Amino acid sequence: MSSSANADVSRNEVRDIILDSDPGHDDAVAILLALGNPAINLLGVTTIGGNQSLDKVTYNARAVLEKAGAVDIPVHAGCDRPLLRPLKVAASVHGDTGLDGVELPVPTRPLDDGHAVNWLIDTIMASEPKSITLVPTGPLTNIALAVRLEPRIVDRVREVVLMGGGYHVGNSTAVAEFNIQTDPEAAHIVFNEAWPVTMVGLDLTHQALCTPEVQRRIQSASDNLGPFVSGLMDFFRKAYAANQDFVDPPVHDPCTVAYLIDPGIVRTRRCPVDVETHDGLTLGMTVADLRGPEPSAGECHTQVATKLDFDGFWNLVEDAIRRLDGTLDRQA
Amino acid sequence: MSSSANADVSRNEVRDIILDSDPGHDDAVAILLALGNPAINLLGVTTIGGNQSLDKVTYNARAVLEKAGAVDIPVHAGCDRPLLRPLKVAASVHGDTGLDGVELPVPTRPLDDGHAVNWLIDTIMASEPKSITLVPTGPLTNIALAVRLEPRIVDRVREVVLMGGGYHVGNSTAVAEFNIQTDPEAAHIVFNEAWPVTMVGLDLTHQALCTPEVQRRIQSASDNLGPFVSGLMDFFRKAYAANQDFVDPPVHDPCTVAYLIDPGIVRTRRCPVDVETHDGLTLGMTVADLRGPEPSAGECHTQVATKLDFDGFWNLVEDAIRRLDGTLDRQA
Amino acid sequence: MSSSANADVSRNEVRDIILDSDPGHDDAVAILLALGNPAINLLGVTTIGGNQSLDKVTYNARAVLEKAGAVDIPVHAGCDRPLLRPLKVAASVHGDTGLDGVELPVPTRPLDDGHAVNWLIDTIMASEPKSITLVPTGPLTNIALAVRLEPRIVDRVREVVLMGGGYHVGNSTAVAEFNIQTDPEAAHIVFNEAWPVTMVGLDLTHQALCTPEVQRRIQSASDNLGPFVSGLMDFFRKAYAANQDFVDPPVHDPCTVAYLIDPGIVRTRRCPVDVETHDGLTLGMTVADLRGPEPSAGECHTQVATKLDFDGFWNLVEDAIRRLDGTLDRQA
Amino acid sequence: MSSSANADVSRNEVRDIILDSDPGHDDAVAILLALGNPAINLLGVTTIGGNQSLDKVTYNARAVLEKAGAVDIPVHAGCDRPLLRPLKVAASVHGDTGLDGVELPVPTRPLDDGHAVNWLIDTIMASEPKSITLVPTGPLTNIALAVRLEPRIVDRVREVVLMGGGYHVGNSTAVAEFNIQTDPEAAHIVFNEAWPVTMVGLDLTHQALCTPEVQRRIQSASDNLGPFVSGLMDFFRKAYAANQDFVDPPVHDPCTVAYLIDPGIVRTRRCPVDVETHDGLTLGMTVADLRGPEPSAGECHTQVATKLDFDGFWNLVEDAIRRLDGTLDRQA
Repeated sequence: MSSSANADVSRNEVRDIILDSDPGHDDAVAILLALGNPAINLLGVTTIGGNQSLDKVTYNARAVLEKAGAVDIPVHAGCDRPLLRPLKVAASVHGDTGLDGVELPVPTRPLDDGHAVNWLIDTIMASEPKSITLVPTGPLTNIALAVRLEPRIVDRVREVVLMGGGYHVGNSTAVAEFNIQTDPEAAHIVFNEAWPVTMVGLDLTHQALCTPEVQRRIQSASDNLGPFVSGLMDFFRKAYAANQDFVDPPVHDPCTVAYLIDPGIVRTRRCPVDVETHDGLTLGMTVADLRGPEPSAGECHTQVATKLDFDGFWNLVEDAIRRLDGTLDRQA
Repeated sequence: MSSSANADVSRNEVRDIILDSDPGHDDAVAILLALGNPAINLLGVTTIGGNQSLDKVTYNARAVLEKAGAVDIPVHAGCDRPLLRPLKVAASVHGDTGLDGVELPVPTRPLDDGHAVNWLIDTIMASEPKSITLVPTGPLTNIALAVRLEPRIVDRVREVVLMGGGYHVGNSTAVAEFNIQTDPEAAHIVFNEAWPVTMVGLDLTHQALCTPEVQRRIQSASDNLGPFVSGLMDFFRKAYAANQDFVDPPVHDPCTVAYLIDPGIVRTRRCPVDVETHDGLTLGMTVADLRGPEPSAGECHTQVATKLDFDGFWNLVEDAIRRLDGTLDRQA
Repeated sequence: MSSSANADVSRNEVRDIILDSDPGHDDAVAILLALGNPAINLLGVTTIGGNQSLDKVTYNARAVLEKAGAVDIPVHAGCDRPLLRPLKVAASVHGDTGLDGVELPVPTRPLDDGHAVNWLIDTIMASEPKSITLVPTGPLTNIALAVRLEPRIVDRVREVVLMGGGYHVGNSTAVAEFNIQTDPEAAHIVFNEAWPVTMVGLDLTHQALCTPEVQRRIQSASDNLGPFVSGLMDFFRKAYAANQDFVDPPVHDPCTVAYLIDPGIVRTRRCPVDVETHDGLTLGMTVADLRGPEPSAGECHTQVATKLDFDGFWNLVEDAIRRLDGTLDRQA
Repeated sequence: MSSSANADVSRNEVRDIILDSDPGHDDAVAILLALGNPAINLLGVTTIGGNQSLDKVTYNARAVLEKAGAVDIPVHAGCDRPLLRPLKVAASVHGDTGLDGVELPVPTRPLDDGHAVNWLIDTIMASEPKSITLVPTGPLTNIALAVRLEPRIVDRVREVVLMGGGYHVGNSTAVAEFNIQTDPEAAHIVFNEAWPVTMVGLDLTHQALCTPEVQRRIQSASDNLGPFVSGLMDFFRKAYAANQDFVDPPVHDPCTVAYLIDPGIVRTRRCPVDVETHDGLTLGMTVADLRGPEPSAGECHTQVATKLDFDGFWNLVEDAIRRLDGTLDRQA
């Protein structure tokens, strides 16, 4: 994140993360939370076709960073489609632009050169071992390609904390979530590598509902980003009501960042997780084996998020918005 | 059930049922509950290779009926293997005989002539429309063959209440239950016919735990069948502790009969259910679509059992054991 | 077949066969060839939904037998749909009636009672061991159900000679043939039982082309059935030209009967054959393993037909038509 | 290939190719044929784990180039495993080193920097449009990753001529060939991109048998590479005899290069080809649709090799060996 905001935390408490995302309303909130919390150092954003086409989500990532005054954060465009299957975007949830409902500034920073996959590999291989956390909040195509191109990144990253899947909940289908179902083969690759993976799935994110009260607090948190996020939520609320029978929209992606800021906000359960790649009713399901006692971290490199501290989560979001706007004001 | 026990309920309250089962410890309890409760009229037992080989479970069915003095109940042997896949019996849970842990009487009634599938078809087609309830508690091979041989039984039976599957719980695999996983193609056939199907799956039956206190009550319910069932539970407890990490064994199959006796004992939720037949991580999973609001019975012919009235359930079992022994005493 | 026609062959040279079929133009020719050749004793026809709906093909079977004067041959209706998948009839090849292009007599013999599957089981179990040959020329649903209901028929039948599949040729898809693709699970069951199976597939039957010259010979073979079969071929020719880019139509089903009359007419190659049941490009493909040297009959219970004696085949068909009409004339 | 060898052909007749391979005995012959024929300009070799591990085949590629004096040809190492499935090497056919049976020189040129996939992309994107032909003779993982990372290479390459698959022949399984079966998902990607693909499969390469007479001619073609190739063939002959019931070994990979040198040597048939990625009997099968009339190049971007000019092929191989040794002599 921008150097100013994290001045009040000692360096060794700060997490270096890369967001691999497809903004997307909730992805935008994840970016803002990463930028606005001093415990997070956002090294860059890589983009992936998902909620909308690669071109649109890449533009959105740059525009959200512009909006937040974070023009020092590089953005690298990644894959425009899944490994094997055609891309089906989620226009019904995110609109034609992928960020319908708000006005976006024109990005002043040009799109950075270099494919997201190569930038990921180069950045990870040049970093201190175990220093970088990958935070994918879209289809996992970029991460899967990176690990096949450079297998050594598995040992080098600190962990993978992803939004996707669900052990008991689906949205694209009865049992599969959109990000994983969009590229189940990529997800299969990512879950089966030996790095630590935390799956922040629908089981958790359907608890991160933006209630009217929450939205009012966010709106009034600051003059600039407060109303911006509230505008995103207005559209998201209508889309989720119309398409998925939700009263309040679940704000999925920032839950990953919140977990990294304060693990106490997201309870987890260690268990084997694999991804169904066979066509059929369950294609793209994240199959978690919850039988028997919980394994240790040494026995099992995957865990799933189970319970959200609702107030703690939204306090973090509100706080990040307020801090970011304060930084913007000081910059102005 | 035997004519004597149901004398105290008016005829039109009594359910005509056929148990299609593979006894099996919990199947045996289901048979006893069906025999011992006046609201149930057990027309016959059909058998299916599952917990153990067809020969063993057929013998067990006859022996349990003998033990309960129900020699008027016909037993017809059915299929010895699943439609497409090889049979893998559950010897680790039910032992080498399929009913390890108790002494069984030698059946005096010979095995009835005629294949279970043909007897099912003939019995159903000869019955009053919507009068017979099918209660499968093993793999669904017999029922699937019957419906392919005589499609008209779909309209003629009252409903199907089966033990199998699980919308959030598996035992054979992370997400699949033994009965369904043994013959997923048969289950696919049964769930996709237009009859009403109630799935009493592991979500429900893992609530039907035979705690030590429950077992003591059952043991002392009567002199004959009380200790018999308690003996079954002794073996079942050890098998579940050794193989599935359970402190108390879940007594699956009688939950179906309990639901038929008193629907208040088993809460249900209507939702589409289908069976995954594609090889892979989820083969044999019962895929329930719990998204959105609950559909009506007119919109959806399947429902899943969700919540058990623990005390109500075990009271029924205890009561049935006591009644049956009372009948036996009067017969003696 | 009718007792009169086989008077000139000694009893022990005659094959007892059951045709399990879905007439269908080429199925009709198979029936006539079975009736008209003294080496074949047609015990009965069982029907199966395939080329057209069960009702239509059952009527067609009865009408073809009527046309041939074979009112002593029983017809039993079987399954109206495949085990797992919906029935898709081949109306583009066989027309709306399943036998478009000719006028059919109204059958005088009523449809026989009893389901085809039960009649198959009862007839086989009551026969001399190894005396009956099953000749399926449609989807294999009936045969699969029979073998699951009564596994002992596997040892009791002499062999299975079926029209279906293809080791290098497809018609429904690039690599799958209609009969097998219609019910791949049933085919999987039939090919994997331990009885001898001869697959007369498209590799062979695409050699059995009804050329104009052949058709002229058939037309003039006799006054009644000659023009009848020629009428069938007129329609078949147009249908195959319009739908499958054939100049002359391949007359699949009688190749099975011709092989039984004179094995010299159909060259075979022994090799393992299994059926692909996984959804995908190859669903319903008969996968023959032709690598390495040909196995012995003891090592391998399946074989595939490879090369047709074209003249020998059509001579048999022409001869059967002439004989049958001769019998009809004598009856008149 | 090195500038000396192609001096006698005019520049515009020369094909720029990249070999993507896993040497491998027949891969080695493909490299020599590419080096030794003036119609081919070998831009580089990229390697892929397949016949043996990536490390071994990369060493082998460098050693074969050293042996042929082609130290100007870059070698870039690629992926060490398939996209989704574990790598199973073909040690039974190629031995523990991947090139058992001959002595290899130690490469003097170091392995080139940069991953094969990135080098492929950079080389293709920097080349004249439609100038480079890709010649993969191993699993297609590198090519698939390249096209997902940089989709524009599809329009930029001239064509893909690959060794793999078979429309009627398998070796790894009854219907699947080793290269394709090793990474069916990668093959699926490559066959489904819009570039021209020529599949030189087992149907063709099983005609490229190294008979004893052919081997004698090759052995005596030159003093250095003649005996070297003959030594490769000695091992290959024994391995194919022991493992695949071949009298003479099929020399698969150089058929691709021979086709590029002189299309008259390999007859082709245009038809749709796709790859089966569903687990089951046919996993990794190249499914060619040969029904109906042959489509035009405008209708169909894939074709399969059908018939080899045996003499023409081996003449090219012999000629290349002789030329290369002549060049080596002149260099010495």
